[in-house]
Amino acid sequence: MEFEFEPIGIIHTPFTERGDTPVQPAGGAGIQGTVEVFEEYRPALKDLDGFSHIMLIWVLHRSDGYTLQVVPHRHSEIRGLFATRSPNRPNPIGVSVVRLDGIEQGLLHIRDVDMLDGSPLLDIKPWVPEFNDGDEIRAGWLEEEGRTGKGRRSSAGLRRKG
Amino acid sequence: MEFEFEPIGIIHTPFTERGDTPVQPAGGAGIQGTVEVFEEYRPALKDLDGFSHIMLIWVLHRSDGYTLQVVPHRHSEIRGLFATRSPNRPNPIGVSVVRLDGIEQGLLHIRDVDMLDGSPLLDIKPWVPEFNDGDEIRAGWLEEEGRTGKGRRSSAGLRRKG
Repeated sequence: MEFEFEPIGIIHTPFTERGDTPVQPAGGAGIQGTVEVFEEYRPALKDLDGFSHIMLIWVLHRSDGYTLQVVPHRHSEIRGLFATRSPNRPNPIGVSVVRLDGIEQGLLHIRDVDMLDGSPLLDIKPWVPEFNDGDEIRAGWLEEEGRTGKGRRSSAGLRRKG
Repeated sequence: MEFEFEPIGIIHTPFTERGDTPVQPAGGAGIQGTVEVFEEYRPALKDLDGFSHIMLIWVLHRSDGYTLQVVPHRHSEIRGLFATRSPNRPNPIGVSVVRLDGIEQGLLHIRDVDMLDGSPLLDIKPWVPEFNDGDEIRAGWLEEEGRTGKGRRSSAGLRRKG
């Protein structure tokens, strides 16, 4: 059983090499990019400008095979692939929440980008906060190693793009 | 340009009809489900049990065509499709953050489910909070209509599944 998806647009960012991209949203904070939505899909952008943040679903198009367990970059232990954000996955799909600064003629101005330039866009969803302040969150091995990757770059284990 | 994805597992939930599924995470709060990860991918689950929440990327397999603008269910205005969570989208991909209660033999016990029973799973990512308390969030037309869908069901405009 296979599913086929066709891009609805292209994401443009300052990142042209895999090693350049931010590890976590905080790493991409303030970094600007644009989303070019193909003309045929532009009527679907109506009302999107009312949202401060949007979720982009895109393809990790430079992904290159995968292994089921990985040693994340700058870490030392072997981790299960699904417990990491490694870009090399069975289905290389990226999910990013970005800040929306404005829309003009099918071009979305976004901030806090963490994907490679030229990434194919599959979907856009409005983003609304998912959790209340009271929720207790555990971040597994990321906490154990005492580093959540905030603001750092190029740690494959924490990559937002995977 | 097309991308092909193959399921890595199947999601089981109590929801067998599209009208049954929750509108927002709050609507699915506490509702239990399971994720059956296919045997060949199970080594990739190592370390995932340390996370309280995980992100599931899955296929809206009962999606049935789309229009670029929609009147969300229980709402009155026409909205751009990408400003809604309608399940009928050019690329019918769902993204859900769920609570992980435990893992045994490739079976993930999850809570706060909002997808249909039998949904094909494409990817699992560890989830870590994305925003600080100080971030200002605007939720566009959802705020204008004075209803954020919390705890309600079957409002296509707010569906978490789309």
